[in-house]
Amino acid sequence: MKLEDLILVSVDDHIIEPPDLFANHIPTKWLDRAPKLVYNPKSKVQAWSWEGGASFAPFLNAVVTLPKEEWGFDPSTLHEIRPAAYDVDLRVRDMDANGILSSMCFPSFPGFSGYFFARAEDKDLAYACLQAYNDWHIDEWCGRHPGRFIPLALPAIWDPELAAQEARRVARKGVTAIAFSEDPPAMGSPSIHSGEWDPFFAACADEGLTVAIHIGSAFSGDNPPFYGKDAPVDVNVTMPCWNSLSCAAHLLTSKVLLKFPDLRIALSEGGTSWIPGFLDRMERHYENQKWTGWDLGKLTPTELFRQHFLACFICDPSGLLLRDRIGIDNIACEVDYPHSDCTWPESPEEIWRHFELAQCSDAEIAKISHENALKWLRFDPFQSIPREQATVGALRDIAKDVDLRTRSKAEYQSDYEQQHGAIA
Amino acid sequence: MKLEDLILVSVDDHIIEPPDLFANHIPTKWLDRAPKLVYNPKSKVQAWSWEGGASFAPFLNAVVTLPKEEWGFDPSTLHEIRPAAYDVDLRVRDMDANGILSSMCFPSFPGFSGYFFARAEDKDLAYACLQAYNDWHIDEWCGRHPGRFIPLALPAIWDPELAAQEARRVARKGVTAIAFSEDPPAMGSPSIHSGEWDPFFAACADEGLTVAIHIGSAFSGDNPPFYGKDAPVDVNVTMPCWNSLSCAAHLLTSKVLLKFPDLRIALSEGGTSWIPGFLDRMERHYENQKWTGWDLGKLTPTELFRQHFLACFICDPSGLLLRDRIGIDNIACEVDYPHSDCTWPESPEEIWRHFELAQCSDAEIAKISHENALKWLRFDPFQSIPREQATVGALRDIAKDVDLRTRSKAEYQSDYEQQHGAIA
Repeated sequence: MKLEDLILVSVDDHIIEPPDLFANHIPTKWLDRAPKLVYNPKSKVQAWSWEGGASFAPFLNAVVTLPKEEWGFDPSTLHEIRPAAYDVDLRVRDMDANGILSSMCFPSFPGFSGYFFARAEDKDLAYACLQAYNDWHIDEWCGRHPGRFIPLALPAIWDPELAAQEARRVARKGVTAIAFSEDPPAMGSPSIHSGEWDPFFAACADEGLTVAIHIGSAFSGDNPPFYGKDAPVDVNVTMPCWNSLSCAAHLLTSKVLLKFPDLRIALSEGGTSWIPGFLDRMERHYENQKWTGWDLGKLTPTELFRQHFLACFICDPSGLLLRDRIGIDNIACEVDYPHSDCTWPESPEEIWRHFELAQCSDAEIAKISHENALKWLRFDPFQSIPREQATVGALRDIAKDVDLRTRSKAEYQSDYEQQHGAIA
Repeated sequence: MKLEDLILVSVDDHIIEPPDLFANHIPTKWLDRAPKLVYNPKSKVQAWSWEGGASFAPFLNAVVTLPKEEWGFDPSTLHEIRPAAYDVDLRVRDMDANGILSSMCFPSFPGFSGYFFARAEDKDLAYACLQAYNDWHIDEWCGRHPGRFIPLALPAIWDPELAAQEARRVARKGVTAIAFSEDPPAMGSPSIHSGEWDPFFAACADEGLTVAIHIGSAFSGDNPPFYGKDAPVDVNVTMPCWNSLSCAAHLLTSKVLLKFPDLRIALSEGGTSWIPGFLDRMERHYENQKWTGWDLGKLTPTELFRQHFLACFICDPSGLLLRDRIGIDNIACEVDYPHSDCTWPESPEEIWRHFELAQCSDAEIAKISHENALKWLRFDPFQSIPREQATVGALRDIAKDVDLRTRSKAEYQSDYEQQHGAIA
């Protein structure tokens, strides 16, 4: 196989939401009260605001093509960032330029499991806005370019029964993935051990929805990552990468997977390199510590893990080296566009280098690059796009004029103002 | 090389403290106020008690040779456990039976970084007891069998200046390792970033003391491991295994290692399998996120890690497979006697199996089995014990009569009462 023949599906990218997202999807009675992207001329910052408060991170780390010296936690306005972050037609062009066939996109201002919507006191309003968000995501963001986006719904994270209801609703619209929190108690919700989430997990298992748990999905303005008041920012930026480990430990040792043997979980941006040691540890613990009462019947912890978890990585050469200890059917790849960790526009080159380092076979490459993602997420892009048009080489061929250059925030803002007038 | 020719040094075992430990080492004026191992006839539990309160876990998980159905967090009295847990002469016999040349032993009732002593209001008393503990450990536990025990001192964890003073004192007695906490703020102490611990780190670097940071070294009765009120005990038992990851992230991104280039740190019971992915991540972060200001000069994060950290594992086949991505000079092995995770009496067989799985060369086996440990901990057992008497085969030859059988708590207690009379 050659790099040009790769078919790449990214199971983790991010939408930066455009200002008009609620306009076409929320019942008129709620429209005035829906979140709005508001510019504060004093602080020169935009934020999504409503009666539930302001968003924590509307443009979370959307720094793709900004010069590295302008990176940081967050740009301040939508106009300082690459328009493909929020414009789906441009996004598809950027996917073409990077050879990406299909992408699953997580939200930004709502938080990775929709916590923003939980913060309105009026829960009818909250649910109306959540539904509007999901409908916009499904019908507009994903609907405009068939085969290119794997729809990912948000749950009603404040209410397990309502989350189940929304899961069943979006499933009827053809959605096959729904987000969830890596740590519900950190958001003031019941834990996965409480049994209270069972209606939601039941709905996901019944309806064939993969539960996508992104690192940082328990973070919000109320619950920022915290590793000590004087810890370097490097600790705060790197440590959440291992949140999936603790999340997987909770799920694996819980009753949830035994109650719902069809439940599928994607550990989004969780990486893979920790998994071989995690499984070694869980096997040894299960074998040794019978007194705890953990009983998987005929399964081993590794078998249970492989039945339920899709491990997802942006860049994880050590994980690829030990792919046989993870499960060759349990690994998918990510781009993380437009965040600072994204590999755009050279995702194919980077993953190819790691495939070569790990001496992956063509069959293994096919599984990791797209087959596992499509199987776990029950998504078939080839209904819309013939295979020969789906490769890195074919997609890049139609995107030769995409501008890949680094541009400063000021340049993006100037472009925007020329097109749309001054920001207000 | 054959299994019998291995030389094995364990850099992590545990002492269960005998009742008379303070008797010979504390000034007479403090003797009455020193901690005492007290039996409560009502609860039938022994605990170390003094004016600072009672110990959290005096026999922490000391279950070696107990039948698995009697395992659990803790036996209740010293008499329910294998005497080699607290009797150093018997301990050496158990080391012989397991082919272990030398062992570094962490404390039990004081906590792995000596937090127990911090809890007395009278800090003169606290320091007197800490010194007595260290002197007992150095002179009695380690002193009776030259070459068999690598002395490990405890710091005055409540006071960085005093911790530095104690480090310099024990260094003069020939000690080359001192414990420290994986998370000082969790114990109410300043963080490593505050600069307040610099006098302690300076003393360790100057005096050639390796700082041994054991997983769980921030836990105590006041600060138990906590992963949610309804989490399975399996989560609480397994998750602390990755505490070293966060501890290493803090140290690696701190100013500490740059200020003290000679400082050596052992990540005790931290395992190794997370390290390749951790280093991949830190390299990528360092390369990408220049805005954070993390500046290692001419070093890379991996080079800095390899200069400062000894990674220590009990059982970690995935780590051995990627030893070249960790650093072949940075890995040492552990037995964890007498805890439930210990591999006694088959440590040589287990590690040999993993050496074979990873196809380690003889030179790599020599480094991991003992050379790295002895170099990092500056310990030379061969001054006392000739090499030909130091191998697994030679040690096991002199321990053929050691009783390896499983025995119940009741049997141990009955043996004890026959020898010493009823417990009081």
